[in-house]
Amino acid sequence: MPPPNPDWVKALKPSGVQGSELLEQERAKSTLDTDQLAAFLFTQDVLDRNARILEILQADPVFDKSQNYFRGRTERIEASLARAKALRRLHVKHKWSQEEYQAANELISEPTPYGLHASMFLKTLQEQGTPEQHELFLRKANNYEYIGCYAQTELGHGSNVRGLETTATWNPQDKTFTIHSPHLTASKWWIGSLGKAANHAVVVAQLILNGKSHGPHPFVVQIRDLVTHEPLPNIHVGDIGPKFGYNTMDNGFLLFNHVKIPHINMLSRFSGVDPETSKYIRPANPALVYGTLTYIRSSIVLQSGSVLARGVTIATRYCAVRRQFQDRDAGEEETEENQVLNYTMVQHRLLPLLAASYALHFTGRAMINIYNENQKRMSQTRTAKDLDDAKRGAGPEELNPGSDLLADLHAISCALKAFASTTAAEGLEVCRRACGGHGYSAFSGIGSWYADYLPTVTWEGDNYMLTQQVARYLLKSARAVLAGKNPDNSISRILKEFIRRRDIGAAFDVLGDDSDLVDAFAWRVAFLTFEALKHRDEEKQSWNSLLIDFWRLSTAYAQYLVVKYFYDALQDEATKSALDPDTVALLRKLFQLFSLHHLEAQASEFFTSAATTVRQIQLARTKRSLALLGNIRPHAVRLVDAWKFPDWQLDSSLGRYDGKVYEDLFHRASEVNPLNDIVVDPYPESPVLFKKLLKEAGQKAKL
Amino acid sequence: MPPPNPDWVKALKPSGVQGSELLEQERAKSTLDTDQLAAFLFTQDVLDRNARILEILQADPVFDKSQNYFRGRTERIEASLARAKALRRLHVKHKWSQEEYQAANELISEPTPYGLHASMFLKTLQEQGTPEQHELFLRKANNYEYIGCYAQTELGHGSNVRGLETTATWNPQDKTFTIHSPHLTASKWWIGSLGKAANHAVVVAQLILNGKSHGPHPFVVQIRDLVTHEPLPNIHVGDIGPKFGYNTMDNGFLLFNHVKIPHINMLSRFSGVDPETSKYIRPANPALVYGTLTYIRSSIVLQSGSVLARGVTIATRYCAVRRQFQDRDAGEEETEENQVLNYTMVQHRLLPLLAASYALHFTGRAMINIYNENQKRMSQTRTAKDLDDAKRGAGPEELNPGSDLLADLHAISCALKAFASTTAAEGLEVCRRACGGHGYSAFSGIGSWYADYLPTVTWEGDNYMLTQQVARYLLKSARAVLAGKNPDNSISRILKEFIRRRDIGAAFDVLGDDSDLVDAFAWRVAFLTFEALKHRDEEKQSWNSLLIDFWRLSTAYAQYLVVKYFYDALQDEATKSALDPDTVALLRKLFQLFSLHHLEAQASEFFTSAATTVRQIQLARTKRSLALLGNIRPHAVRLVDAWKFPDWQLDSSLGRYDGKVYEDLFHRASEVNPLNDIVVDPYPESPVLFKKLLKEAGQKAKL
Repeated sequence: MPPPNPDWVKALKPSGVQGSELLEQERAKSTLDTDQLAAFLFTQDVLDRNARILEILQADPVFDKSQNYFRGRTERIEASLARAKALRRLHVKHKWSQEEYQAANELISEPTPYGLHASMFLKTLQEQGTPEQHELFLRKANNYEYIGCYAQTELGHGSNVRGLETTATWNPQDKTFTIHSPHLTASKWWIGSLGKAANHAVVVAQLILNGKSHGPHPFVVQIRDLVTHEPLPNIHVGDIGPKFGYNTMDNGFLLFNHVKIPHINMLSRFSGVDPETSKYIRPANPALVYGTLTYIRSSIVLQSGSVLARGVTIATRYCAVRRQFQDRDAGEEETEENQVLNYTMVQHRLLPLLAASYALHFTGRAMINIYNENQKRMSQTRTAKDLDDAKRGAGPEELNPGSDLLADLHAISCALKAFASTTAAEGLEVCRRACGGHGYSAFSGIGSWYADYLPTVTWEGDNYMLTQQVARYLLKSARAVLAGKNPDNSISRILKEFIRRRDIGAAFDVLGDDSDLVDAFAWRVAFLTFEALKHRDEEKQSWNSLLIDFWRLSTAYAQYLVVKYFYDALQDEATKSALDPDTVALLRKLFQLFSLHHLEAQASEFFTSAATTVRQIQLARTKRSLALLGNIRPHAVRLVDAWKFPDWQLDSSLGRYDGKVYEDLFHRASEVNPLNDIVVDPYPESPVLFKKLLKEAGQKAKL
Repeated sequence: MPPPNPDWVKALKPSGVQGSELLEQERAKSTLDTDQLAAFLFTQDVLDRNARILEILQADPVFDKSQNYFRGRTERIEASLARAKALRRLHVKHKWSQEEYQAANELISEPTPYGLHASMFLKTLQEQGTPEQHELFLRKANNYEYIGCYAQTELGHGSNVRGLETTATWNPQDKTFTIHSPHLTASKWWIGSLGKAANHAVVVAQLILNGKSHGPHPFVVQIRDLVTHEPLPNIHVGDIGPKFGYNTMDNGFLLFNHVKIPHINMLSRFSGVDPETSKYIRPANPALVYGTLTYIRSSIVLQSGSVLARGVTIATRYCAVRRQFQDRDAGEEETEENQVLNYTMVQHRLLPLLAASYALHFTGRAMINIYNENQKRMSQTRTAKDLDDAKRGAGPEELNPGSDLLADLHAISCALKAFASTTAAEGLEVCRRACGGHGYSAFSGIGSWYADYLPTVTWEGDNYMLTQQVARYLLKSARAVLAGKNPDNSISRILKEFIRRRDIGAAFDVLGDDSDLVDAFAWRVAFLTFEALKHRDEEKQSWNSLLIDFWRLSTAYAQYLVVKYFYDALQDEATKSALDPDTVALLRKLFQLFSLHHLEAQASEFFTSAATTVRQIQLARTKRSLALLGNIRPHAVRLVDAWKFPDWQLDSSLGRYDGKVYEDLFHRASEVNPLNDIVVDPYPESPVLFKKLLKEAGQKAKL
């Protein structure tokens, strides 16, 4: 640590109106009840719980964040492993629930080497293991004697799971499987918690029985010695190296050279190998496997709102503190500089994202409700046809969309996962840039958060790949509607309404009526769906030539869903009874801003589908959006306050609740930054680089 | 360094068709002469020069890149300082020109602590110093006895230079200036080369004479001891801490506590203080100061093409090597997976950026030509009016646009700097994501390049701020045209043509005629300009309420310029004589793709301005773009080869010329990654984190 600032520096304050005063003024300008809104967003129980956990974490020096931004990769892994261990001990000590443990992880806000153990490894053992396997593996895993990971992705294969190269070959003689990596591209890759921490892995490998492949299946494999933690023989394992972000996680690689495991190590709740006959036992219901993926995608949708809200909180507070230039139309006597947040260009970048954070929050809630509803129905009404479909190995996209919620849910979760995570990721970068130069400092707290979040647009289904699945579902739905089938689901109703009105045309009043605004988004989806169907079924265009259209279609569908769920949430009686009418009215402005922002951005699709008039789109772009920005502006700081991020969680100089932005930036740079411990030799002819540490220099000077 | 791979791992190869074969096939598919095209883009002399320099750098271990992605901040500064010194010694030894030194820096591709010394410090001393000051400061600076930086930006002030808080108060008694930081926000901030390397700074401070401020002026201040390199008394200086990128640079902070400097330290070629009368000497021509900024912006435009081309090169090669899924319409017998580059969705993301890299290259060339033309004219024909304008302190935007090229040049450089750097920065991130999961690995080589480039969208004029200056120029030009003035410059011609045809309407054949495509972009600029003028002058809308329109307007203007310059370059006889007709035809496809891509993305502006028909825009989106993607696809790898980036410069596993992508990813992860030297203790109850180094473990095992 560098020496403290000299006294004359300590005496300095920022010039002009202080950041703390500016944020106080902001909060005084709006009467929005942030506590009420926060309790509505999260429930008071959750807020209280988070406060309790925060206190515990802050008291433990292992969770101290002050060095986070300065550490190199090895030191970061060291710190995050220490935190993972400490968090596990707290988990046990305080008898935390899974939700509480998760809340603690969110407050820490960095992945740790226990991350994949605590999620996918345990979940896969639980869901895909038999009771015997639970006893054998899960008990020890729950107890952290076995520390594991989920090894699916390979160096040569990500999205295409069926193309995985690792093999698990059944040996009838000794009733074992041989796990093997036949090629370099078979190396497991990107596997979280594998690089350093895991001693076990669930390895997804092609099951080979009598020379025939039965596709990818999960196997439990011990990879490191339980005492020395050295790799076992014929296993090559390690960390894959630094990444754009996520560097507190030990993503790893793993290769096998004919490694034998016993029969019991194949996770066989759903499918397996009969050890006596060496016959394959088919899965009873492959839809259940899709269930896990759908759950993960739904969780990504649920998180996306608060992921984005974090960046919006930081940028909004800082743009209220930062002042730059006088207003050009202000008189000569105006000498105080203008808060950056007053510029419409900044509002235009930031406030639609503020609206998006709320929109995604309500969408995430709706998504989870649909997921839970589906889980309930699935366990109740499984039809004979479903079982037939399942037995012939149909993916959910091939299941009849009318038969249950599964196909709807799958499409909705794919469309929303792609849209929500892209919106959150790209929105964070917009927030970072809206902070101007200081957004680039690590102390802004946005860059690392963004970099850590980025893989979300690729994993659990690449966002572009997913749009094909959504399009397939929409095309299938359109074909069903045209064939006169009448499934009573949301998408069919939209498509039928479009057909009904197509000839008389639509003229939705997107500026005058919020429900018309929702209908305009639905209309565009139907229009694009039938266009795509015509290209595919009538014009027989190749699938590949339609991928761009499919991506546009899926995005349109996702935007419709978000607009719809946001609208529905505000119509809900529970909302109206929980919140002041003024708060609901303000949220409605956010709804309008979000919707019109996307309508503007995709104006040409609304033009060509004739969902509304050219004049309304022009007005939306000019007058209406500007008016909404002006309406929302006074409440911006309170609207981000309602997310209730503690400063400790944000770890941002720019996003401090108290507005002491410059003091904090300066403190971290001058008094924490370890580079300021060092004096260099700057001359080109000198081979010396670091002359000495300042601290020593200071001590010598004193002597 | 971790131990080498075991023999059974060494024996593994990637599965299926090897990356090297795939790239060979790609190169065989196209007859594009990459050497000819490269010589046209850069000249053969430059290519030969770069090859010569590359050889020198590769021979010196200080420039070895293999550890770059693994180092922490302090180690990175250590390495980059060592490189800066070595490069300076090579500069002297090989008697390099400034261009050769610059070329070496580009091959190294990381900023060093000498960066701002070698550019802004020397340039400012040169341009703003008197001959006496050259003798006193510049000679030693050129010799690296003085190592300096350019200290303008402050903690509280970036874009608004007039708001800087640091003061330089003239003391008539002893003929000195007192440099002082009255507030914390006065701290110089973000200053490259200041944090560790500099012993001098050009400090931009408010000149105070007899209690009156005369605005910001440059002063040379010694900040560290020339022998001990410790900060001088009453100076607080250091590194500002880690950033999103640019971490090999020591961006610094600097505060002064009433530090006295002699009269000679005010750089006074243009303005100064008469030491006898204590009177202010006004600058003879403030336009010259704007000249430097314009030069820097023009350089940013020039670089943007190759900045982007680097990401496009990596992504294109990798997408030709990476295979994933079979084509959905391919028959059952098709078992080989498809090259990712064959998917239209990937082409749609990547090929318009390939086109943009060429478009920006030709635009940058045109920009530099205009700059040089202007410099020549400025030195020849300075009118009496110019001098008058200059004396009353008018900025270039207030100079009569017809009087010389300066106002045009200023607006063009602002518009293009904003558009080109945004396109390059955001394009790099698109390239990174187009690489799928592996794009996230540090070894992709895109992430760090992107992160280092990002400040370009903020510095030398924030890209959003700049659009106001462009709009001001366009409004002024429109007013001149409406007033019947007839300046013969490009923008006036566009505006007049719009007025002439406004009543009969435009119907540009954007699909049939390339010059019509250029005209459609011009038409849209004129339409948006007169719209904005109406809002401002007739409807008296506030400046602030128009900022979003201004940003759209400036972007439209920049896009027009790029389209126009690209078109002109292809029409040029020099181009036609230097290149095969086939190559010119291929470049024309890139021109069309770039233009139609932006026409589609901003379709609603082309709709409302009625630049072309709705039908043409729809066709552009569907049929035409897809056809162009298909036309360009076979030449994609050769088109990126023509940029001639050596592998050493790209430092990317994914972008290797030989296609050995997976081998290189694996080698770096397994055999170079220092984290694989470490064995952790994974158990939560154990306080131990790192058990030992593998190497030791390996040695023990052998004993």
